[in-house]
Amino acid sequence: MKAIIVRPPEKGFEKKDVQIQEEGIKIRILENGICGTDREIVNGQLFAANAPGGYSFMALGHEAIGEVMEDGGDFRKGDLVMPVNRRGCGKCLNCLLGRPDFCETGEFVEAGIKGMHGFMREYIYDSPEFLVRVPPDIRNTAIMAQPLSDLEKSLEEIFSVQGRLYWKCRDGTYGCRRALVIGTGAIGILFSLLLKSRGFDVTVSNIRDPAEHETRIFEETGITYFNSSNGYSSLGNKDAFDLIVEASGSDASILPSLLSLLKNNAVLGLFGFMRSGSAVLKNTDIQNLVYKSISVVGLINGQKPHFEAAMRNLVQWKHIWPETSRSLITRTIPIDKIDEFPGLMNKKTSWEIKTKISWV
Amino acid sequence: MKAIIVRPPEKGFEKKDVQIQEEGIKIRILENGICGTDREIVNGQLFAANAPGGYSFMALGHEAIGEVMEDGGDFRKGDLVMPVNRRGCGKCLNCLLGRPDFCETGEFVEAGIKGMHGFMREYIYDSPEFLVRVPPDIRNTAIMAQPLSDLEKSLEEIFSVQGRLYWKCRDGTYGCRRALVIGTGAIGILFSLLLKSRGFDVTVSNIRDPAEHETRIFEETGITYFNSSNGYSSLGNKDAFDLIVEASGSDASILPSLLSLLKNNAVLGLFGFMRSGSAVLKNTDIQNLVYKSISVVGLINGQKPHFEAAMRNLVQWKHIWPETSRSLITRTIPIDKIDEFPGLMNKKTSWEIKTKISWV
Amino acid sequence: MKAIIVRPPEKGFEKKDVQIQEEGIKIRILENGICGTDREIVNGQLFAANAPGGYSFMALGHEAIGEVMEDGGDFRKGDLVMPVNRRGCGKCLNCLLGRPDFCETGEFVEAGIKGMHGFMREYIYDSPEFLVRVPPDIRNTAIMAQPLSDLEKSLEEIFSVQGRLYWKCRDGTYGCRRALVIGTGAIGILFSLLLKSRGFDVTVSNIRDPAEHETRIFEETGITYFNSSNGYSSLGNKDAFDLIVEASGSDASILPSLLSLLKNNAVLGLFGFMRSGSAVLKNTDIQNLVYKSISVVGLINGQKPHFEAAMRNLVQWKHIWPETSRSLITRTIPIDKIDEFPGLMNKKTSWEIKTKISWV
Amino acid sequence: MKAIIVRPPEKGFEKKDVQIQEEGIKIRILENGICGTDREIVNGQLFAANAPGGYSFMALGHEAIGEVMEDGGDFRKGDLVMPVNRRGCGKCLNCLLGRPDFCETGEFVEAGIKGMHGFMREYIYDSPEFLVRVPPDIRNTAIMAQPLSDLEKSLEEIFSVQGRLYWKCRDGTYGCRRALVIGTGAIGILFSLLLKSRGFDVTVSNIRDPAEHETRIFEETGITYFNSSNGYSSLGNKDAFDLIVEASGSDASILPSLLSLLKNNAVLGLFGFMRSGSAVLKNTDIQNLVYKSISVVGLINGQKPHFEAAMRNLVQWKHIWPETSRSLITRTIPIDKIDEFPGLMNKKTSWEIKTKISWV
Repeated sequence: MKAIIVRPPEKGFEKKDVQIQEEGIKIRILENGICGTDREIVNGQLFAANAPGGYSFMALGHEAIGEVMEDGGDFRKGDLVMPVNRRGCGKCLNCLLGRPDFCETGEFVEAGIKGMHGFMREYIYDSPEFLVRVPPDIRNTAIMAQPLSDLEKSLEEIFSVQGRLYWKCRDGTYGCRRALVIGTGAIGILFSLLLKSRGFDVTVSNIRDPAEHETRIFEETGITYFNSSNGYSSLGNKDAFDLIVEASGSDASILPSLLSLLKNNAVLGLFGFMRSGSAVLKNTDIQNLVYKSISVVGLINGQKPHFEAAMRNLVQWKHIWPETSRSLITRTIPIDKIDEFPGLMNKKTSWEIKTKISWV
Repeated sequence: MKAIIVRPPEKGFEKKDVQIQEEGIKIRILENGICGTDREIVNGQLFAANAPGGYSFMALGHEAIGEVMEDGGDFRKGDLVMPVNRRGCGKCLNCLLGRPDFCETGEFVEAGIKGMHGFMREYIYDSPEFLVRVPPDIRNTAIMAQPLSDLEKSLEEIFSVQGRLYWKCRDGTYGCRRALVIGTGAIGILFSLLLKSRGFDVTVSNIRDPAEHETRIFEETGITYFNSSNGYSSLGNKDAFDLIVEASGSDASILPSLLSLLKNNAVLGLFGFMRSGSAVLKNTDIQNLVYKSISVVGLINGQKPHFEAAMRNLVQWKHIWPETSRSLITRTIPIDKIDEFPGLMNKKTSWEIKTKISWV
Repeated sequence: MKAIIVRPPEKGFEKKDVQIQEEGIKIRILENGICGTDREIVNGQLFAANAPGGYSFMALGHEAIGEVMEDGGDFRKGDLVMPVNRRGCGKCLNCLLGRPDFCETGEFVEAGIKGMHGFMREYIYDSPEFLVRVPPDIRNTAIMAQPLSDLEKSLEEIFSVQGRLYWKCRDGTYGCRRALVIGTGAIGILFSLLLKSRGFDVTVSNIRDPAEHETRIFEETGITYFNSSNGYSSLGNKDAFDLIVEASGSDASILPSLLSLLKNNAVLGLFGFMRSGSAVLKNTDIQNLVYKSISVVGLINGQKPHFEAAMRNLVQWKHIWPETSRSLITRTIPIDKIDEFPGLMNKKTSWEIKTKISWV
Repeated sequence: MKAIIVRPPEKGFEKKDVQIQEEGIKIRILENGICGTDREIVNGQLFAANAPGGYSFMALGHEAIGEVMEDGGDFRKGDLVMPVNRRGCGKCLNCLLGRPDFCETGEFVEAGIKGMHGFMREYIYDSPEFLVRVPPDIRNTAIMAQPLSDLEKSLEEIFSVQGRLYWKCRDGTYGCRRALVIGTGAIGILFSLLLKSRGFDVTVSNIRDPAEHETRIFEETGITYFNSSNGYSSLGNKDAFDLIVEASGSDASILPSLLSLLKNNAVLGLFGFMRSGSAVLKNTDIQNLVYKSISVVGLINGQKPHFEAAMRNLVQWKHIWPETSRSLITRTIPIDKIDEFPGLMNKKTSWEIKTKISWV
């Protein structure tokens, strides 16, 4: 079948006919999302990337919507599904519990990234256990459920971490809690929407003025935008946020200023893959972490329950934030035309939220 | 009454007759512990220290054992008690729930430190609500319940934070989890004992060979000692620990090497007050925090339930680790003789775990 | 203003012009739902019902959608809102935390039921703190958010209770868990939908064949219907369910057969107000509760966070289950025509899910 | 080796030389506790009892202290240990997590009860994974750690269940919570001690005046005794308890009066094996369960972490409640003399807390 393949650690990708041995029910791929990790692999920047055992290549792609071609498990021919992308090591307790996001051995595999063929190809075969139902209502935006699943997991984890104190408000909600999301890529936007839909007062920032479609999103959803090109001090109150999520993967030197924006008992969630730089934390910065009971937590990788939550949220958002939901998909490129978009697999365009490749 | 008083931000202390206006039942102070925070105040190093409103001085001391002088609440004349040292702001939800360790306003007061008279004096008057019963069996070591309460709270918080994953072992215990405690002061020793008694495999480190009494403690309790004067690399496996607790208050530059010792899903607990230096975290260090789902958490201040747990543990430890329990109290100095110990209130001696002042 | 009022413990109701003294922002009532509790009050069956202090009457109604008439809090003129119906005692900790569902004193008030005027009237004045935003997308079904809020809270409570063990499945979801809901009134239907949308395998039962609109609901949502008129034994495996929710308020004699249907570690959630009868539990029935680690839990009353969750779910369900969502509202009766429906306020018609009264 | 064996479902027991095939490190049994379950098996009353596959007999006994005869795991020759008595099914998730108390398949085995040889014999061979270290300080009372482990688990479970609300007090402790324990057998006494040591206000009841040794226990520990021979109404306030634990295994007809003693949000924990009778719950009793948000929960069987907690508590109790701790062991009978105590294996004497059999 036709597939987009890579040969890490080599740079580049090919569209090629390949043979892949798999078991499970047959699923025709309808579309894939392109994500920053895909581009890092194509650019030869992701050292962790490696092909599955016995193969000299790896099919790329971990975001896919497919159509079930034969009955299997609870699925029927014609059902829309999304495969989950990380699979457990089979050894540690967290993987036995369906939670390879907390794999202890590091021997998990991940579709299109590490030791498992990805989903950028005509067909896959997979076990129903790894398939998530896609509501037809969100056929167009469901591809966002993969990145959103990571954030559903992240927010669930943040709530767990904050179980250390009483973190709700006087009315039992999170309406009194202020969150700052750094970055306006797919992750930054989706995390902002998720926090907003759970009641947080949300500010999102980037080091530039917002693009036009971003402005529409923030107006529709009631999210505040902040241009941080001159730092964060003009945000006002230094101890301003109960939660900051780093979703930009920017230079590491940003860290001390983020820490200084945290309230007592706050959380700094680290999601982005910081590409460069260093963070210099003075001893007084670290004292502050202690005195203010701050928690810093690394956030990765949603599993099946988080994909399901993501689907529910995408349906909800489509109807309460229709303009925003439409804006999430920047463009859809037929597989036969990807050669007409040089750089497509190498670099995010500045105005892009999500680019999809369609196979049908 | 006689009291040891300070006048922050001035350096120094005085033993002086003072008048303090208080309400509650009368408690005769039997003994106080001297702690690093007391010494920072005496040395003029703790900028947060301030006398209670309406007073030009503050009685020092937040570790005290007293004898109840009149019936009150559930207490009877003659009962041994320890007063809790932090009192809530009366405004935020966590303080209303008896948990000023998670005060959100920062307006809590703290005996002998911030806005409230401490316990180094002949008598205090206090509400039964803030008194913790001391089992007579541990009359001699109960002073350790104050610092230990901070660690009971810290471990409770670490367990909450780790509620984000399945952190127990295949036998339902924590016996498969490895912990490293940095520092062998009162906090480092007590945290090691606490973790050991909860089943962890514990290593404790300092930048020197262990003192003789430390060696006896580690032998009796089955704790491993590590001399980190040449760094941590000889500890072996780089990804070695599920939990590291910084309890030394050492130079901040230690941070990157601690992070590099953490396993997937591990916790770095920050307890010590880092006195100097900076930590330089490269972007790859921060990437590791993310990929390994690590959590860094600031740890402070136990409340009444943690004092109660500390009393329970001190009783238990006295009998399963008698030699260790005896070693916790380095010396007891009668209040009338403290002038014979110059520097007593300024500096920990290297072999000291806890020095007490006795009033009777 | 015009209002539907009651004078408990007297039977009956009146549509009458009344004066009610209230504070807050003005809200024009658009519609009310009629619920079983309203009918019990009208029928003089709810002994707990009582008028607010200083009034000889009480406005009925605890389910309402209104339109904000003036800016206030985060709300703007024209916003659609639903007021929460229970308000705390102001004394116990759970009420201070916004959770009067767990009021310890029993001194909470409840709109239209106990000590507080209800919402069946032209206007109310209320604090923004007690208002929940209604997404315009669900203008027609949002009235269901009040009963659904009770179930959001109930399911949250069930998950808390099951925190005693590992209750998720091998894929991290609840897909392997079987739930049985007794009753097909508004509560039974909504609870079934909620459990289904969280991944449970759901069976719902009543002592008759399903009505036509019920059949359509169960087909669309994948819920199984069971006619229990001959008991539950034909359900097959005696130890069949991980969760049973009693939502019928049927005769208490049903209890032993429900207990016999529970698996190890299962939960029996009691929501319905059992109108008659007795349950005879043999000592062996109670032994089974013990050996099987079963939990029985009383379920009541959602608060603001649960209303918000209910709104999110109603939006989602409207689009994944459009037919079902349409069926939830059985009929809408203009306030001026309620006299044309004798018995409306006394008795549920057998085919009714929810009847609304509209004020505009 | 010599062993006490049974042949369920037959009545009776024998002291006999037997051969048992086992793997693991060798442990010499020092003593066994006799418990109600042992007597039910001997009396032919426990229908669930069955011998291990391939054997016509089963060694009795699930409470044992032994001495390790050879190094293994973390244990050294000479260490005192207690083996855990329930072992998982190897299939369900809870058993994989070391928690066969929540076994879902029911295929667990239990020493001396169901499918596994018990510990009333000269030697056992067992895996270090199932051994719990016994502090020499409690050599005499450690046998109580097995029944106490069940209660450690039960209280942990009760705290989990109550995670549904805020159940702590204004000072962060459980000091404002009132508990009632029904029964003064080993379980009733131990549960009372456990609750008391966690800060609860504890009342314990039986249908007679307290025995002399019971009076001493209650005086030393500050537990209140109540003679319930005339029912519970004279306990005063009908809504009196936050927690009731049924630990008497009395007639099931007691249930309605216990329910009537529960406060809002309270828990009824069922531990005892109700031997007779029926409970008649009126519909209004069940309505009360709902309105008061009551939870009823079946409590069984501690695992390794609970044995460890039990050991810690027994050490603590020995020193804060020395008289009480001494009273826990009613008598110790050498294995060679058990024939001199007819009825020993059939019936608890009324004044008995725990009878031990010693093998050395």
